[in-house]
Amino acid sequence: MAKDNFKRSKPTALLDDENDSGSIKPDSPDETMRKRRRFLQSGGALIGVAAAGAAQSLAHAATPDATAPQTLAAIPDSMRAPGTPIGTQPYGTPSPFENRVVRNVPANQTQYWSSTSRSPLAELDGIITPSGLFYERHHAGVPAIDPAKHRLMVHGLVERPLVFSVDELRRFPSVSRIHFLECSGNPVYKKPYGKTASDLVGLVSCAEWTGVTLATVLKESGLQSNAKWVVAEGADGAGMTRSIPIEKCLEDALLVYSQNGERLRPEQGYPVRLFLPGFEGNMSVKWLRRLKVTDAPVYSREETAKYTDLLPSGKARQFTFYMEAKSIITSPSGGQQIPDPGFVEIRGIAWSGHGKVAKVEVSVDGGKSWSEAVLQEPVLTRALTRFRFAWQWDGIPTVIQSRATDDTGYVQPSFGDLLDVRGDNSYYHNNAVQPWQIAADGSVSNANV
Amino acid sequence: MAKDNFKRSKPTALLDDENDSGSIKPDSPDETMRKRRRFLQSGGALIGVAAAGAAQSLAHAATPDATAPQTLAAIPDSMRAPGTPIGTQPYGTPSPFENRVVRNVPANQTQYWSSTSRSPLAELDGIITPSGLFYERHHAGVPAIDPAKHRLMVHGLVERPLVFSVDELRRFPSVSRIHFLECSGNPVYKKPYGKTASDLVGLVSCAEWTGVTLATVLKESGLQSNAKWVVAEGADGAGMTRSIPIEKCLEDALLVYSQNGERLRPEQGYPVRLFLPGFEGNMSVKWLRRLKVTDAPVYSREETAKYTDLLPSGKARQFTFYMEAKSIITSPSGGQQIPDPGFVEIRGIAWSGHGKVAKVEVSVDGGKSWSEAVLQEPVLTRALTRFRFAWQWDGIPTVIQSRATDDTGYVQPSFGDLLDVRGDNSYYHNNAVQPWQIAADGSVSNANV
Repeated sequence: MAKDNFKRSKPTALLDDENDSGSIKPDSPDETMRKRRRFLQSGGALIGVAAAGAAQSLAHAATPDATAPQTLAAIPDSMRAPGTPIGTQPYGTPSPFENRVVRNVPANQTQYWSSTSRSPLAELDGIITPSGLFYERHHAGVPAIDPAKHRLMVHGLVERPLVFSVDELRRFPSVSRIHFLECSGNPVYKKPYGKTASDLVGLVSCAEWTGVTLATVLKESGLQSNAKWVVAEGADGAGMTRSIPIEKCLEDALLVYSQNGERLRPEQGYPVRLFLPGFEGNMSVKWLRRLKVTDAPVYSREETAKYTDLLPSGKARQFTFYMEAKSIITSPSGGQQIPDPGFVEIRGIAWSGHGKVAKVEVSVDGGKSWSEAVLQEPVLTRALTRFRFAWQWDGIPTVIQSRATDDTGYVQPSFGDLLDVRGDNSYYHNNAVQPWQIAADGSVSNANV
Repeated sequence: MAKDNFKRSKPTALLDDENDSGSIKPDSPDETMRKRRRFLQSGGALIGVAAAGAAQSLAHAATPDATAPQTLAAIPDSMRAPGTPIGTQPYGTPSPFENRVVRNVPANQTQYWSSTSRSPLAELDGIITPSGLFYERHHAGVPAIDPAKHRLMVHGLVERPLVFSVDELRRFPSVSRIHFLECSGNPVYKKPYGKTASDLVGLVSCAEWTGVTLATVLKESGLQSNAKWVVAEGADGAGMTRSIPIEKCLEDALLVYSQNGERLRPEQGYPVRLFLPGFEGNMSVKWLRRLKVTDAPVYSREETAKYTDLLPSGKARQFTFYMEAKSIITSPSGGQQIPDPGFVEIRGIAWSGHGKVAKVEVSVDGGKSWSEAVLQEPVLTRALTRFRFAWQWDGIPTVIQSRATDDTGYVQPSFGDLLDVRGDNSYYHNNAVQPWQIAADGSVSNANV
């Protein structure tokens, strides 16, 4: 008897005619109308309610601050007429009041083919970056690709060279993962330093990616015994090409066709991209058209002329895949202003290409002392992690900063310590602590000048 | 000595001049060029690579199917010139090739003030619904609200009536949660039944919400001892009003200002909405302007004339808050077509207003037998959960369906069992199993006719 299906171990008001214990008994109609009148009458008493400064009270002042009384407008215009009918926006967009929240294209970007746009980190909450604000890094602009014509080839040291349409890739078993993506040049080391969180590390974003594991597709093709690397090629004007160790390809690499629920955006590699969780962003080749299995790296332009790290010794380090543990305070951050002394929730993001964020510490005294922030659950592997720290700002100028530790035990270094090791030839993989200067008027600026 | 900060327990190629073991030794320049030439030459050999039907091979055919050879176009047009420069879309949008993926406005919707639009569930992957495709249910259209002018008042049985601007609400401690939202009329019980997953249960979506807990704000106002309910009022033309038990307000209710990282969209309650995880969607009052703490429900229009459940006895059940455990197969689903027999990954979503999804079972034989599907981790409380089930379709017509069990032990009922209990007066809270008919040609349709 299917009724067993309705059993639950907790009380419920639903589906249980036999059991009304969880439902609220309605009043008689008269009682209902009496209460409704009472509510409607109370609506007339709204004008002149005294306001308290919420932040003040959270600051544990003895009494709520009543120095800024406000009135609630009786009935706003929005309640006097119907709003915009449904169906006028088949695909929704942000409020016009938010039209300044866009990707940040650097003013000093002299040309737009090899280019970046940055996520407006100080405007974002949580860990999901909306796809419309996801950072971009292109090596030859954004190609327009017809998904019906696009093909992905797997060849080289395989038993069976294969060519897939997008629909064929979608037929494979699928997985969804929430992961960050970050450009290895985020941020640069040299002056002038960025002023805002977006200027500095806006080349990081996070999304839910869906696709097929690269391991599944490689297994389908059959790897030969000398398969050591996979060379990925994009269908953009740059023919973006990177070599990836076979271990990463078999560990957690994805062939992604969807981001945040819907198909990839053009600027994220539509219709299919490689995605290498935790690796520097350019290796997650967009508009992916070819995977060649090889016994050695191909030494493409993007792993020789670019994306190598020139050390003080004059030796260049190549294939520095992993994005190390990093964090930044996004609120309050450069360009923002704390309105007045009192309660401030310090908010930011942390991440590590090696795994999960284990801990974020915050200093509000220029680095003399550090306290642990609260991490928003769930903390996911190779994903942005939101941290929060409750602070009482006393109105005195200071420097605030955050420091991430990942689950390998690695601790985000200071900028000085990083430069001591790297020297001043470095361009990529700057994961230094970012300090913010708070001035007496509450204005926030980059403490690195 | 700060160098300690750089230690990690796993090998790394980064930041360790002392330790080169993790980095790849570059070849000599000559060797590099030799390999690069070899790679480029191999590019010329791409034409005429035989393709295999990936799905066929996954179906464990003895050999890959080579009956549909394809060629990979030598160099696609997208590689012959730079693409669109960066900065042309400060706020990104989907590919023009995806312009049919929009919210689904029912054709039989005779007017647009009290209205719905549905998420295109069969087009979506993962658990995050992009905000542009999040379902809508409005009682008087979408109001245009200036966030600088908007106020939220908390009054009634409180120690301190308070009025908040949006900025003041943002100053409170914040939380982020991934939760589904679902309309209680999703789907209706009566014929004609919907044809697609979106027609049927497209009034459910899922997002990452950020805001302040209602408990924090109520604590700030100070609840009086007789506070039992909170009445929420929206600033839309409907003056949407619902009564919420104080227990829910203190458990996990949120005042939300951000969705999927950015500020709420207008159609989701910009600039601030109530959010009641797991409760029927209309109670999560949008464009929230007023919270009145009371000792009894207010018996508003939306909890008397609407959103009650008329039972066979003639008695109406009121305040049926929770959305029960539910699931639906979104691929393959109504309106889609399986291209040919062989491997099919059955994909769908499951959720429960009471907590986490504990299990999803799939039947591919009209309900005679059931097997457990794989749930995508992380499985979150009161969030959509993606399930997947590997199936070999033999080309014979059949009926497929999914059945969710939540962590209270509650099992999603069949439509017949639900009607046996509810009778035919019911309109809301239909959480029945949805069966799909697969025809011999692979076309999929609603098995309920």
